[in-house]
Amino acid sequence: MKLTLVGAGPGDPDLITVKGIRALQQADVVMYDALVHPDLLDHCRPDALKVYVGKRRGAYSCVQEDINPLIVHYAQQYGHVVRLKGGDSFVFGRGYEEIEFARQYGIETAVIPGISSSYAVPASAGIPLTTRGLSESFWVVTGTTKAGQLSTDLRLAAQSSATVVVLMGMHKLAEIMAVFAEVGKTDTPVAIIQNGTLPDERTVVGNVQTILEKVTESGVGNPAIIVVGEVAALAQADLQSVLNASKIQL
Amino acid sequence: MKLTLVGAGPGDPDLITVKGIRALQQADVVMYDALVHPDLLDHCRPDALKVYVGKRRGAYSCVQEDINPLIVHYAQQYGHVVRLKGGDSFVFGRGYEEIEFARQYGIETAVIPGISSSYAVPASAGIPLTTRGLSESFWVVTGTTKAGQLSTDLRLAAQSSATVVVLMGMHKLAEIMAVFAEVGKTDTPVAIIQNGTLPDERTVVGNVQTILEKVTESGVGNPAIIVVGEVAALAQADLQSVLNASKIQL
Repeated sequence: MKLTLVGAGPGDPDLITVKGIRALQQADVVMYDALVHPDLLDHCRPDALKVYVGKRRGAYSCVQEDINPLIVHYAQQYGHVVRLKGGDSFVFGRGYEEIEFARQYGIETAVIPGISSSYAVPASAGIPLTTRGLSESFWVVTGTTKAGQLSTDLRLAAQSSATVVVLMGMHKLAEIMAVFAEVGKTDTPVAIIQNGTLPDERTVVGNVQTILEKVTESGVGNPAIIVVGEVAALAQADLQSVLNASKIQL
Repeated sequence: MKLTLVGAGPGDPDLITVKGIRALQQADVVMYDALVHPDLLDHCRPDALKVYVGKRRGAYSCVQEDINPLIVHYAQQYGHVVRLKGGDSFVFGRGYEEIEFARQYGIETAVIPGISSSYAVPASAGIPLTTRGLSESFWVVTGTTKAGQLSTDLRLAAQSSATVVVLMGMHKLAEIMAVFAEVGKTDTPVAIIQNGTLPDERTVVGNVQTILEKVTESGVGNPAIIVVGEVAALAQADLQSVLNASKIQL
């Protein structure tokens, strides 16, 4: 009996690791989430059981309680369960809860990291979370806490020089921007990236004061990542650099 | 002419992405850093030029100035340069500086993310950076800033409930612990992980008050990652769980 958590990465199915693919090839059962790219299931054995356990919005914590015993059930019945999760399973992925639960039943566990959307999605839009002269650190928070409220840490983050990345925060965008405005950061650049690393990736760039209007205008929405900090402006600089580069080549 | 930054991942050569391997297979020149696993070079074409550009400690910023024009040189002479860097090239990897420099010469650029050590090394030691009830966010800082001083952000981080991850911070461990002690966090768990994800991985766990002594006793050293926060204690819990699990199986 074994449970292997595998991070599927941020979207692009080629951003899974070699080790992750090997686990998929060996799995007796693959339990996969909503944001996992369907092509990844092609790595499974033809006889492997594929189980969709995508979480419905709004019924988040309830459904996790159902997944844990399902993992145990499949491990006991079939042997090796791979739990395939979007991004990385230990970065807001609730993977540790599954590991803890499975261990109570004597199931061996392993964790194979995945590329976390927190930095790979900004990178895909041309934004480095750190770069000399602009940002020396980065802070990753979730917009969706257990209590349903914004993390109080966000107020400390807003006062720092860190690049702040908010995952699952689009439904609280106005609240988040208000926290930054309160500490006087109305001009700080903000980038929102939807469907990062996929062919339909879209980026909207503005600042703390303008981003809400730009989001409304553009219709950009979930799944999306919010980046607040000086580096967010490089998403625009990116386009400019491409234009400059073309000029040099002409 | 093309430059592709490829993140090699935290250590284990199987933690590179499928996309990263494909870039290595296509490269005319591969310029690689000190912390890159040698097995990764086996993915290169036999006729590809392999150039070691590992940075010497203490001559860090000087050497980066040498690497930028080398990239341009190789791109102009050979075509496609892959810049293979440990971890992820946009997370304290100085990758953006290389991208910016190359673009000034009309070189096309691309970024393929790598598994960042910041969360994958703690995961390898059994530590999730976030988990419900213990930590809702994480902050990644470097111990080695341009100015050679500790980031002032660390004081804000220490006041938060975030898990704090310090990369390249072992030479400033006493200073970092002092920051946490000043805000009264003497009992907060601390884990130090050396050679994370490799066969010789070693973990030392203590708290803000005890970790310096434990590091001295154990001789654990670079390359290592420092994790400060309640989740750091799970590295010990991990061992306990394994013991519990064995009991159930007996």
